[in-house]
Amino acid sequence: MLRSHPTAMPTPDNWTLEDRAIPDAVDGELLVKTMWLSVDPYMRGRISPAKNYAAGIPLGGLMKGGGIGEVIASNSPDFKPGDVVISDYFGWQPFSTIPAGSAKIVDTVSAPAQAALSYLGMPGLTAYFSLLKTGAPKEGETVLISAASGAVGQIAGQIARIRGLDPVAIAGTDTKVAWCKELGYRAGINHRTSTDLVGDVAAACPNGVDVFLDNTAGPLHDAAMLNLNTFGRVVIVGTIALADKFDKPDIGMRHLRQTLITRARIQGFLLDDFEEDYTNAAADLLSWHQQGLLKTREDIAEGIEAVPGAFVRMLKGENFGKQLVKL
Amino acid sequence: MLRSHPTAMPTPDNWTLEDRAIPDAVDGELLVKTMWLSVDPYMRGRISPAKNYAAGIPLGGLMKGGGIGEVIASNSPDFKPGDVVISDYFGWQPFSTIPAGSAKIVDTVSAPAQAALSYLGMPGLTAYFSLLKTGAPKEGETVLISAASGAVGQIAGQIARIRGLDPVAIAGTDTKVAWCKELGYRAGINHRTSTDLVGDVAAACPNGVDVFLDNTAGPLHDAAMLNLNTFGRVVIVGTIALADKFDKPDIGMRHLRQTLITRARIQGFLLDDFEEDYTNAAADLLSWHQQGLLKTREDIAEGIEAVPGAFVRMLKGENFGKQLVKL
Repeated sequence: MLRSHPTAMPTPDNWTLEDRAIPDAVDGELLVKTMWLSVDPYMRGRISPAKNYAAGIPLGGLMKGGGIGEVIASNSPDFKPGDVVISDYFGWQPFSTIPAGSAKIVDTVSAPAQAALSYLGMPGLTAYFSLLKTGAPKEGETVLISAASGAVGQIAGQIARIRGLDPVAIAGTDTKVAWCKELGYRAGINHRTSTDLVGDVAAACPNGVDVFLDNTAGPLHDAAMLNLNTFGRVVIVGTIALADKFDKPDIGMRHLRQTLITRARIQGFLLDDFEEDYTNAAADLLSWHQQGLLKTREDIAEGIEAVPGAFVRMLKGENFGKQLVKL
Repeated sequence: MLRSHPTAMPTPDNWTLEDRAIPDAVDGELLVKTMWLSVDPYMRGRISPAKNYAAGIPLGGLMKGGGIGEVIASNSPDFKPGDVVISDYFGWQPFSTIPAGSAKIVDTVSAPAQAALSYLGMPGLTAYFSLLKTGAPKEGETVLISAASGAVGQIAGQIARIRGLDPVAIAGTDTKVAWCKELGYRAGINHRTSTDLVGDVAAACPNGVDVFLDNTAGPLHDAAMLNLNTFGRVVIVGTIALADKFDKPDIGMRHLRQTLITRARIQGFLLDDFEEDYTNAAADLLSWHQQGLLKTREDIAEGIEAVPGAFVRMLKGENFGKQLVKL
């Protein structure tokens, strides 16, 4: 349950764990036993009272998010006990009732179930559409990606390489940067040890930045903007660097002259806008994975008690790869 | 001549006036007697040592910009004495030599010569393409325009009205706002007397802002961003509110969460990118003017001594309509 709205970086104390009876599924609902829960940056918005995509969770309310589970009881003709389903309506609880309309059966043959929360699901599709559609890269262009070893970044860098682009990573440890290079990023920058981010981006991107997949906002945004090429594109995919000051105005450098001079296009991204193309995109992602072109890394916490901590860890960038919780 | 690079708002003292002999036109050049000089916001960039579209003017260098004049001597087969020509290479001087390749003959029959520096020229074309192409408005959408009585804004508001859009003006005096409404703007805001710009934009745009033609940057940008609709478009046409701190970072509110949540598209605009469509656009503008759908206002200073003052006046928003200097 959400105990309090965090005003700065959330801590596990913002939540309480309560013992409750297993809920009953009413008509059109499924009772599912949770197997995997996903914690994702967008959930930071859900625990803020500020305006956002969707309504926030009220104090005392149950946290909800993406998950995978086994159907225990079905009040829908489309699902039967034993089905493994994915939905964005999983509570942070061992058993959830979810609307059948939100659920889809997971293909557990082609890939492990949790891939549907990672490279075959929201993070993978986000990487795919944010880079290839909103970023609209042309062959050979330099693509700079922040949070490059994260759930979205790890996929985006590899898609960039597959499509003949020149990907450059920004990540938070030397180990993450090294792993990004293993994945196919040409170069990488550790933003936590850099003393000159603008210069380091310039050095890593000798032809300038054509597309910037911005998963962070904050100082990395500045470093990219100050290295942006004419007609550069900046895709605002996430703002995780603002997680500790979410409800306060973000004050800093404004790049309107830079935007004017470069004729940059800066555009906000929401995966839902691409829903009609999910099937083709997921087929591409699966095919690349099966061909060995797409490697991914998961960071797995265990047990329902671990969920708030895993969420905060992910917001702080302490995870390495897609953050999941296994129940 | 440029005497010094201004570090804040320029003053006329940044220039000196020197007596020189009338120059000679070399091969491929025209000697022209200046009739009109245009002073425009983009010229603020030319007197800054900062990186810009084009190289800046060195200290001691001659100021250049748009102008109209009569050919006195021609070293080009395409022009003859008596022709009235427009070029972006007019010096701030009574007689200039200009490259023949930069000159075009002005149609002085359809409209007064100086219209080619106003609604038929750079400002009119800027309004046309920034609104209709980069802004990509759909019928009925609300278009908010800053510097709305200025050279670009006065045209943009009327094009919006002609195209079935709902234009709202931001200008710097009550008289300018009243005049914007005469032109066809549905509503207007005086940003110099407003004590709550965000609220005043909300009140003037009850359906939110779909397209914002940003001629100013600064606090007006914030007020528009905080009222932007989902899939809103912001066209960065100019940054005149930054004229007094041109070479310093612009520090203020950053709207990356807003950009993400609205999936806004923020895009820099440069007229040169639309050169191949100039002819059709100018024909539309002339036709609208001849039908009485497009009214314009000029603010005319007189004499070569008046040029730096007219430029500074325009940067400060003290002009009313397109600022010109008549020689």
